[in-house]
Amino acid sequence: MDKPLKIAIAGLGTVGAGVIKVLNDNKDLMSARCGRSVEVTAVSARDRNRDRGVSLDSFTWYDNPVDMASDDNVDVVVELIGGSDGIAKALCEKAIENGKHVVTANKALIAHHGTALAKAAEAKGVNVMYEAAVAGGIPIIKALREGLAGNGFSRVYGILNGTCNYMLTNMRETGRDFDVILSEAQDLGYAEADPTFDVDGIDAAHKLAILTSVAFGCEVDFDGVQTEGIRHVSPIDIEFAEELGYRIKLLGITSRQNGTVEQRVHPCMVSKETPISQVEDVFNAVVCEGNFVDKVVLQGRGAGEGPTASAVVGDLVDIARSLSVPTFSVAADKLEKLSSASLARHKGSYYVRLMVVDKPGVFADIAGVLKEHNVSMETIVQRNRAPGETVPLVLTLHETSEDSMLKALDGIGALDSVVETPRMIRIEDF
Amino acid sequence: MDKPLKIAIAGLGTVGAGVIKVLNDNKDLMSARCGRSVEVTAVSARDRNRDRGVSLDSFTWYDNPVDMASDDNVDVVVELIGGSDGIAKALCEKAIENGKHVVTANKALIAHHGTALAKAAEAKGVNVMYEAAVAGGIPIIKALREGLAGNGFSRVYGILNGTCNYMLTNMRETGRDFDVILSEAQDLGYAEADPTFDVDGIDAAHKLAILTSVAFGCEVDFDGVQTEGIRHVSPIDIEFAEELGYRIKLLGITSRQNGTVEQRVHPCMVSKETPISQVEDVFNAVVCEGNFVDKVVLQGRGAGEGPTASAVVGDLVDIARSLSVPTFSVAADKLEKLSSASLARHKGSYYVRLMVVDKPGVFADIAGVLKEHNVSMETIVQRNRAPGETVPLVLTLHETSEDSMLKALDGIGALDSVVETPRMIRIEDF
Repeated sequence: MDKPLKIAIAGLGTVGAGVIKVLNDNKDLMSARCGRSVEVTAVSARDRNRDRGVSLDSFTWYDNPVDMASDDNVDVVVELIGGSDGIAKALCEKAIENGKHVVTANKALIAHHGTALAKAAEAKGVNVMYEAAVAGGIPIIKALREGLAGNGFSRVYGILNGTCNYMLTNMRETGRDFDVILSEAQDLGYAEADPTFDVDGIDAAHKLAILTSVAFGCEVDFDGVQTEGIRHVSPIDIEFAEELGYRIKLLGITSRQNGTVEQRVHPCMVSKETPISQVEDVFNAVVCEGNFVDKVVLQGRGAGEGPTASAVVGDLVDIARSLSVPTFSVAADKLEKLSSASLARHKGSYYVRLMVVDKPGVFADIAGVLKEHNVSMETIVQRNRAPGETVPLVLTLHETSEDSMLKALDGIGALDSVVETPRMIRIEDF
Repeated sequence: MDKPLKIAIAGLGTVGAGVIKVLNDNKDLMSARCGRSVEVTAVSARDRNRDRGVSLDSFTWYDNPVDMASDDNVDVVVELIGGSDGIAKALCEKAIENGKHVVTANKALIAHHGTALAKAAEAKGVNVMYEAAVAGGIPIIKALREGLAGNGFSRVYGILNGTCNYMLTNMRETGRDFDVILSEAQDLGYAEADPTFDVDGIDAAHKLAILTSVAFGCEVDFDGVQTEGIRHVSPIDIEFAEELGYRIKLLGITSRQNGTVEQRVHPCMVSKETPISQVEDVFNAVVCEGNFVDKVVLQGRGAGEGPTASAVVGDLVDIARSLSVPTFSVAADKLEKLSSASLARHKGSYYVRLMVVDKPGVFADIAGVLKEHNVSMETIVQRNRAPGETVPLVLTLHETSEDSMLKALDGIGALDSVVETPRMIRIEDF
């Protein structure tokens, strides 16, 4: 049996306490699988005295987590503080500098500074690992970087934010509005007091930027992710989606075409027949499209104490077993710098909902604008005829460029008989 | 860049040719990911001249594959011959003996000789890898052995045979009989001329025995798998399942309780609400239940040239990156020898279909037998009343021991009014 792997944990919230629980509860299992024990030796958190359901007595306590990076009795620093900069970044940099491995659940940190951290770590011969940063308990980083490494990937996409998926599922099941569901989700602890990171798609965008690098072997480019959240999704769109054979999901989608990468996070309509449309509530799922394996779907819990701790400990097991793989699939100094494909040039199908005054000639006006921009219609649904009143009119459009679609929407929105800003949701053909 | 990893491939059927294609098509990607090139240097197959869509000109040809195990220009032997014994086994043993890594897609070999091969390989410091042996392109071995290695597993189950899943899906969709679908599947090349391994559950049992060892860190025990195929599944049962809210799937299920392991392969009724019930056609899926991660589902293609080759090359990438993990999660000399739980002591719910003469008193007789064996009924469905004629009568039974269930079925089968052997299908509560 080799000597123990010694762990320092920075941040003892839900996940930090979870990691301690896993290492306690599964102690013998870890030793058997790693051929050595995995032991926490040091911890740091804001409040030393909070009851976390685990004893901290046997660990060295640090008021300043960065100091743990200089503790000789530490082989791996587990960073669970969060935030893309500040102390989390300082701790990881220092740990690498001192030749210690880093394991983190911090998606913002990796999305913003992943390339630099990878270069530093690989130069020092240590690992930076972040399985817990993407899709919680689902071992998607390992799948892309190792299990499916025989494949060139054309596209990777998924449900990456459990809060949004829970909200969309709940909206569909109850027909209630976004605001009502959000405040309920906040009361239940499923959404933060400031829900921006979740509902505006930023959290999903962090994760997507990371997936992009792993799948395509390119530098992490969070700024290249084109992001739109779910605030504009309304029950009426969810209802129409259902009628048209779709579900609305907030997806992150990354694809590579001709040396550019298109990264986007936005609400999507996906066919009810696809596996991903059936992933509901807080669950996450990621679909990998490889040139030999075809589609592989991984599904599970994207957040929470147990699943996130499972991912952190998975990384620790790799380190304990002395496994080392390039941080983003290929050596950090070989990562490509891919340019971002503009969403304006994106080609896709679209769902558009208009609120129109129900009077003769409306449809001719709309059709005229669509024709002007070379956008062709696939279906049109009008319900609840009510002459002279405002009624919803739903169109689905055949594949067209986003640029043309947006111009057509501007034209349609300017029509007298169209009384609200048109709502557009992209239809994804998986 | 390190020196190339040199590969010998034994067996150039669909998968062997697929591996050569992956290594050709994704050559630059492999080099970038592995930090070295992965090159085929030697091949062996029955027929040298068959057109496989790939050129063999640059490889050393061997008439006898076992001789490749002694070629100094080979680092890894890829065994794609098949069969649990004979030449496949001789080749793998010789390769290990000569200090070469082994990668195989041979589920029968690993199910029967996995423990011995693992011990030999670990003693020699080489890897025996078999990702392609279970669930084709789905990286389930890596997920269980590495990504989810922070978890103790209680149960792992899945759809492990694409042929059976295709047939069951087709039977449900068309209402046709097993025999008709089988002969069609044979014409289409989805089923073998001798379909025994697939339809009698043996192929799934091989895979389950392997999953058991990886999940529970125990010796591979193929003989401990209790196996029943799909020959007895009839369209009428599929129809009743649908009516009761279930789908019928051939599952492999392994679970660990109190130091024993229960391994079983048989048709199951699973709720239509579960993700696994929605996995149709030739697709495979595996669900891992870990004590921290909860459920993780992996889904994809379980067979075919591309997916299987993807799994083989995934293993080659691991070797090229010098990654080494115990063959079955824990060191081979530490694998536990778990005893098999008898299916007679299995507790579960049951679906039972009887063909009975529709006359007064039948039900009282059946209820009497059930009472005698302490089996209690949950639902009863009788359709198409036709006094004096034979009609189906379907029961679902609350959780009971299999032993009691079988005794009750014997008693029921012996009743005068019960005209065919009762059909029983286990209901799984996932």
